[in-house]
Amino acid sequence: MTYCVGALLSGGIIFASDSRTNAGVDNFATFCKMTVFERAGDRVIVLLSSGSLAGTQAVVSLLRQRGEAQPEARPSGAVERGARGGDGPRTLWEARTMLDVAMLVTDATREIEQRDGKYLEKSALAFNASFIIGGQIGSEPMRLFRTFAEGNFIEAGADTPFFQTGEAKYGKPILDRVVTSPDTSLAEAAKSVLVSFDSTMRSNLSVGMPIDVLCYRKDALEVGQRWRFAPGDAYFTALSAQWSQGVRRVFAELPDLPAPSAAAGSSAPPNSSMVSG
Amino acid sequence: MTYCVGALLSGGIIFASDSRTNAGVDNFATFCKMTVFERAGDRVIVLLSSGSLAGTQAVVSLLRQRGEAQPEARPSGAVERGARGGDGPRTLWEARTMLDVAMLVTDATREIEQRDGKYLEKSALAFNASFIIGGQIGSEPMRLFRTFAEGNFIEAGADTPFFQTGEAKYGKPILDRVVTSPDTSLAEAAKSVLVSFDSTMRSNLSVGMPIDVLCYRKDALEVGQRWRFAPGDAYFTALSAQWSQGVRRVFAELPDLPAPSAAAGSSAPPNSSMVSG
Repeated sequence: MTYCVGALLSGGIIFASDSRTNAGVDNFATFCKMTVFERAGDRVIVLLSSGSLAGTQAVVSLLRQRGEAQPEARPSGAVERGARGGDGPRTLWEARTMLDVAMLVTDATREIEQRDGKYLEKSALAFNASFIIGGQIGSEPMRLFRTFAEGNFIEAGADTPFFQTGEAKYGKPILDRVVTSPDTSLAEAAKSVLVSFDSTMRSNLSVGMPIDVLCYRKDALEVGQRWRFAPGDAYFTALSAQWSQGVRRVFAELPDLPAPSAAAGSSAPPNSSMVSG
Repeated sequence: MTYCVGALLSGGIIFASDSRTNAGVDNFATFCKMTVFERAGDRVIVLLSSGSLAGTQAVVSLLRQRGEAQPEARPSGAVERGARGGDGPRTLWEARTMLDVAMLVTDATREIEQRDGKYLEKSALAFNASFIIGGQIGSEPMRLFRTFAEGNFIEAGADTPFFQTGEAKYGKPILDRVVTSPDTSLAEAAKSVLVSFDSTMRSNLSVGMPIDVLCYRKDALEVGQRWRFAPGDAYFTALSAQWSQGVRRVFAELPDLPAPSAAAGSSAPPNSSMVSG
């Protein structure tokens, strides 16, 4: 499994990914699922991978190899055609917009699916690679996308400022409470993302540390802050303990259930069979 | 969807179920998913249903009809044979043990599956009915089971004192924090179950009120307290608001992320491509 979060806020974008992979429950390993493409002053592009490791690695490797072949062949802005027209951008360094980036990533996803998909089916497996993609290019606003294994994608907006992939449910409630609008501060959002990872790792062993976190600040056009929280990290351990104790304290202060007759609308459920002894 | 919880504690059993059913997202309805079979002084058996409503209703109706046909034909203890031997119990009123009950319920589940399954497959549907079953018969200890659509089942023990069915993930973290052993009090467990329902209903619209809650006290051999929390219930509304405010307060008090260099084990993720502008 995997757990990744991207949150698009007025002040910037928070990215976070776990780094546990597993094939069955008896084969766990650690792989970083966060990939950064950065040309300072021009663009920052961050990919968070989820799905089969073979699939996501192949997509990222393809994107990187294409970028290395001609990293500065055509500077940003030199490409005239539409997003994916004949002369459209062919690498992440050429992409003029984050929409171009989303299309390049999903084109690469589809290429790998065409290469591997039919062989996976022979083993009753399905090709499965999806990404959270975010960043900023030149003067374009920051953007955040979430792609699907089929190669289509959605974009975050003000009403839904964050995306999760992988084991999303355990960690969603705290994000729903904190990241309610793009005006959430980067500090608050980063903190809620870590609490979200804490909740997820408590309940699903297949999501694990280290946790990679990256904070991109609006219009910086270079990576801002980066953290890697490894097992035993002092801040994360303290955060987790304080959260746990606080939640238990709040719970302890909640009122006990009232006597049944006092509950508004209280009544026995209708499905009762009774036989007098 | 559905959300049901059963928690087997030293002092008794807490049962809770939501009552929302839906066929697609455009057809919601309300059905009680808690069924009680009670013969005071002899037995209390509670079923919590999840799965397709047609399937679970058919199973419950079959169990009830068989019980009505001969509710007192053979008193508890009169059945000599093994759990499901030739002369074994045929109704929930005849069952000598909760294991008998689990077998009768799953036998009925398999009967309905045999009747309906092949017709459902024609519409690309699958038979799907499972139950949380708990209670106490005579001098036997209280027991709690969770059945699967296939008709097999598992029993709760000291290490795992609660079962959830349906939309389990959003509401699991609070149960994991509170219902950590059978020594959890009934009051604490009931409160945590309601918080668990609150979290679940916030994140999944297909789980909804009224919430039916039943508290069975050890060796009572009759239903103890029952609640039905309908929309707008004063206690539940207050509980939900107090929990939400408390969680936000605890969150606000958590320390912000440290400067990246201060984080133990902090380092940039390895997957970075950089091109100098």
